[in-house]
Amino acid sequence: MGKSIMITGGARSGKSGLAEDMTLSLGRPAIYIATAEAHDPEMADRIARHQARRGAEWQTLAAPLDLAGALRNSDTDDGTPRLVDCLTLWLSNLLLAGEDWEAAADALVAELARQRAPVVFVTNEVGAGIVPENRLARTFRDAAGLVNQQVASACDELWLCVAGHPLKVKPQ
Amino acid sequence: MGKSIMITGGARSGKSGLAEDMTLSLGRPAIYIATAEAHDPEMADRIARHQARRGAEWQTLAAPLDLAGALRNSDTDDGTPRLVDCLTLWLSNLLLAGEDWEAAADALVAELARQRAPVVFVTNEVGAGIVPENRLARTFRDAAGLVNQQVASACDELWLCVAGHPLKVKPQ
Amino acid sequence: MGKSIMITGGARSGKSGLAEDMTLSLGRPAIYIATAEAHDPEMADRIARHQARRGAEWQTLAAPLDLAGALRNSDTDDGTPRLVDCLTLWLSNLLLAGEDWEAAADALVAELARQRAPVVFVTNEVGAGIVPENRLARTFRDAAGLVNQQVASACDELWLCVAGHPLKVKPQ
Repeated sequence: MGKSIMITGGARSGKSGLAEDMTLSLGRPAIYIATAEAHDPEMADRIARHQARRGAEWQTLAAPLDLAGALRNSDTDDGTPRLVDCLTLWLSNLLLAGEDWEAAADALVAELARQRAPVVFVTNEVGAGIVPENRLARTFRDAAGLVNQQVASACDELWLCVAGHPLKVKPQ
Repeated sequence: MGKSIMITGGARSGKSGLAEDMTLSLGRPAIYIATAEAHDPEMADRIARHQARRGAEWQTLAAPLDLAGALRNSDTDDGTPRLVDCLTLWLSNLLLAGEDWEAAADALVAELARQRAPVVFVTNEVGAGIVPENRLARTFRDAAGLVNQQVASACDELWLCVAGHPLKVKPQ
Repeated sequence: MGKSIMITGGARSGKSGLAEDMTLSLGRPAIYIATAEAHDPEMADRIARHQARRGAEWQTLAAPLDLAGALRNSDTDDGTPRLVDCLTLWLSNLLLAGEDWEAAADALVAELARQRAPVVFVTNEVGAGIVPENRLARTFRDAAGLVNQQVASACDELWLCVAGHPLKVKPQ
């Protein structure tokens, strides 16, 4: 099975840059699997900045909802590594589309077990603030935490990104 | 003195499951000291799910306010471990009841020093988001941080739970 | 170049106390560079409590905006250590004053490279909660994360404070 890595951390903690470095250390060129959709100018700006940082070594696939399918279709015997950025936006897309996120997470983990080439996942810590007053926000942060646990359990490595620097959580 | 462990982390980071495993590794059967009260359906649902996960090896005590008393009354020479889940809800209960939480925290730490059997505490990281606009929320997160520091200082071990995986903070 | 250390963590995680201990371990007496301004009673109360905790070994400098200048003016050949508490409030002051925070962060890092005496920075994790609904809050947490990354990269050591206890992030 291909090596799998999850990198988590707060907003602007340097997760994406770190994940890009880790992915390229696993092989070049690499595939960037983007879960973001440019719903508004703020997000469009963020996507553009991320794309500008990545160079010509990256091919980009869009997978706002069918992440298991994107992994299956991009898996190769030559070991081209994939970077999934990020699980939190993917979950948000699933919830907004009214999809069954628990089934989607199960399908993702099942697909991960069948992968031959490496995968690096970026995700977010969203549960270390005060309990949100908004019920939907509470539902989202609960689901995000559960997805993080499930994917982290399936991965070989788990890293916490703190102010741009990686802290290894697993394996110890 | 009985071994004491504190496990902290964000919402849905897997703290309770990890704490249950650690508690049972210290002895079986074990006692679950619940600080939660079913004030609303959302909380009742969470309590029911937590109880369903724990099996027949657990006896449950309710201690929404008098946590020091619950530790004193459940302390035994046979070393039956206790799991306190969680300090953040306990603090919330104290504040809602208009109790002196600083005195209660002092009493808890004093009782901890007298314990013979092991205790595992679950608590929450609530201070790593944006400063809340709500003044009560700011007061709560300040108090929660101070209680976490105080109990962590009194414990033998401190763990940070990240996406279901434990990271040892103390002892180094 | 003088040793440089950054300590990050959530609210009330014990960062300031830990930073004071680390600073005094680098030399006595020490200089406290305060970025806080007493805009309201809540903040005035916090400043007074922090000052009461520090003893006569500390000289205090106020630097709500010109942090690079404060470092330059307090740098000595005798190695008197400085504690900057904290970068998050400094950033907040810059934003409120309409200053160019990116230029200020560049100037800070450039000044840091010229320092002879040690510097300890305190900063906050503000990006591990739910995405704020308030646009200004989102802008602030993005900027705070970027400043944290930039200063952490320039520092020799990076520590994450968890419930009053330090976890070393860098160097590994």
